[in-house]
Amino acid sequence: MALIVQKFGGSSVANAERVMHVAETITDTYKAGNDVVVVVSAQGDTTDDLIDKANEINPKASKREMDMLLTAGEQISIALLAMAIEKIGCPVISLLGWQAGFETNNAYGAARIKTVRTERLRAELDKRKIVIVAGFQGLNAAQDMTTLGRGGSDTSAVALAAALHADLCQIYTDVTGVYTADPRKIKNATKLTDITYDEMLELATLGAQVLNNRSVEMAKKYNVEVEVLSSMVKEPGTIVREVAKMEKMLIRGVTKDTDVARISVVGMKDVPGNAFKLFSSLAAKGINIDVILQSVGRDGTKDISFTCAKGNAEQVCALLENLFSNEGATVACDTSIAKVSIVGAGMQSHAGTASKMFGALYEAGINISMISTSEITVSVLIPKEYADKAVAAVHQAFFG
Amino acid sequence: MALIVQKFGGSSVANAERVMHVAETITDTYKAGNDVVVVVSAQGDTTDDLIDKANEINPKASKREMDMLLTAGEQISIALLAMAIEKIGCPVISLLGWQAGFETNNAYGAARIKTVRTERLRAELDKRKIVIVAGFQGLNAAQDMTTLGRGGSDTSAVALAAALHADLCQIYTDVTGVYTADPRKIKNATKLTDITYDEMLELATLGAQVLNNRSVEMAKKYNVEVEVLSSMVKEPGTIVREVAKMEKMLIRGVTKDTDVARISVVGMKDVPGNAFKLFSSLAAKGINIDVILQSVGRDGTKDISFTCAKGNAEQVCALLENLFSNEGATVACDTSIAKVSIVGAGMQSHAGTASKMFGALYEAGINISMISTSEITVSVLIPKEYADKAVAAVHQAFFG
Repeated sequence: MALIVQKFGGSSVANAERVMHVAETITDTYKAGNDVVVVVSAQGDTTDDLIDKANEINPKASKREMDMLLTAGEQISIALLAMAIEKIGCPVISLLGWQAGFETNNAYGAARIKTVRTERLRAELDKRKIVIVAGFQGLNAAQDMTTLGRGGSDTSAVALAAALHADLCQIYTDVTGVYTADPRKIKNATKLTDITYDEMLELATLGAQVLNNRSVEMAKKYNVEVEVLSSMVKEPGTIVREVAKMEKMLIRGVTKDTDVARISVVGMKDVPGNAFKLFSSLAAKGINIDVILQSVGRDGTKDISFTCAKGNAEQVCALLENLFSNEGATVACDTSIAKVSIVGAGMQSHAGTASKMFGALYEAGINISMISTSEITVSVLIPKEYADKAVAAVHQAFFG
Repeated sequence: MALIVQKFGGSSVANAERVMHVAETITDTYKAGNDVVVVVSAQGDTTDDLIDKANEINPKASKREMDMLLTAGEQISIALLAMAIEKIGCPVISLLGWQAGFETNNAYGAARIKTVRTERLRAELDKRKIVIVAGFQGLNAAQDMTTLGRGGSDTSAVALAAALHADLCQIYTDVTGVYTADPRKIKNATKLTDITYDEMLELATLGAQVLNNRSVEMAKKYNVEVEVLSSMVKEPGTIVREVAKMEKMLIRGVTKDTDVARISVVGMKDVPGNAFKLFSSLAAKGINIDVILQSVGRDGTKDISFTCAKGNAEQVCALLENLFSNEGATVACDTSIAKVSIVGAGMQSHAGTASKMFGALYEAGINISMISTSEITVSVLIPKEYADKAVAAVHQAFFG
């Protein structure tokens, strides 16, 4: 018998039929002799509908009242899911975030979990009840409802698994696991049996959109074994854990990210402190930047290029023009690019991984405009129109 | 400066426009220098929609999960109303039932309020905040959400007013107050300035559907002054309190109730205990009965007639046939009747009130089939088709 935490997203419980389907998945796990704690998000469009209602009344509503409003969404879904499990005939109880012991800080809309007090959870599990917990929510020290922000329900599930020392945290999604590339695009993309936390973090950052980064970071911190699997297809998913088993595999996957803009500041004075000035001004505005390249320009000037999310490009350009136009530098923005990356802890100990990637791109006739590497990733910027072709070529080189 | 509790029902906050209107009513009271605590129900059809969702999944869902589901409705409306008040620019905070200190017993779906702990409420009022409280809900000793059942939000408002020793509890409704008769039917029906708790209780019982009886009973118990007024029309409503001011008025109003069936058991053996047998068997099933008439029948038998709600008539007849058919009695049911009543504490000290009512009915050519009186009411059963005519004739006799 194991203690298993299962998490289901909003689309998995969007209507009565799907709620019943999820209830069957849960009770199957329970009937196999396991203790089961379930984290569930608000149904389908509930959260968006509530946000629309709020905007109609007051688009500048306080975050405190917004959290009061939005936490009602998960309250509805936990009750409905519990009712579905009652119908199947298994003992069950639904708990709000605060009833399940989620204590957070005061950051309404993006609260951090401080602790999960498990007394109530333990008491319900001791009665052999399936416990359904409202994801995405907690209670702050003032005894007010808070929400955890983006990816909150994944984080709730991992936090619960950590607090309860669960044997496994299953994140049910609309994909059957983590693949070596997007299986909708690359025919011979294969599902990974397992992957390390660090690899998963890089894949999430690089646009693989399977697991929220925050939840993977928490899983890594508390060493929670996470399985990503499908809520519709019954088959084993991908296990995320500290040490992956398949040591022989150099890389775990190939990803692309097209939500990227390249900003270039050309002709800055080559004096100390300009890079600091540039990036600290962006950090002050909370803008994340990625691949950075600095090169020596003409006539004692230097050029700095970096990437950021497309949505931030306009703001970044305006900011940098203010900062550097008086010293004769020009700011350029290119949104016609894509970032293609390979991820794998295995490459740490294997020379030639990067060159194998570059070779594949060269053979496909794709020009690389920037390169960035970390211990477990190699990323290249290429023209956006070649992104899918690049992923296919690189995937073929490593997995073909 | 006064402390005022205001209660708004679901139709008052059904959409964004109405929420803004209610917010203005609240902030007007606040800006006049009062402390304001507001109780609000779920928006419009929210509760019915949630019940539909539950029925689709499991029509036999536990009451515990049903309460978990339904309490989300008020959570949404308090947040939206608080946002509307934020927009107007007044300090405000929304509180769930448990945050506002509502502690109840364990009777999910029909919980009784045990106490209201006012520490948080007082703290927020001390900050000069308008406090918006979710009606209809509380928390039981197991720390689970409960609902108060029918008329729950009225009861929440009166309980808050009692706990906070508020100066006034305003119940906003779709009528402008309590009238001497239904103003949609009787042209010269006049609004009462005030009315006693007992009179209000009789009027509610008799079908005037203005205030829930449970809230009036609580108001009487804790001597809370209640004002019934319109959420749409700005004018003083009707004050419900211990001693009404208009002593000269014999009666307060004329009401009719057409949701009534007359059950007759004819030809029972005239032996002791038959009445007890009859009514205790109904009480055991939780069936409320009203006007009772016992008369001597033919050949040493006796007849008993009484009224009950139409919805219970079939069950009652089946029960009584089981009980009495073996002793030759027959059970008859008449649903073509109506009950017309006059209510007024003044009639206690005035002879002739009943006869004045009977005279008015006689002159209108309406036959009375049963009569029942209490200290402050006189009720008659008449053919249903004459109900409106009877109310008009009696109203004319007393208020014309």
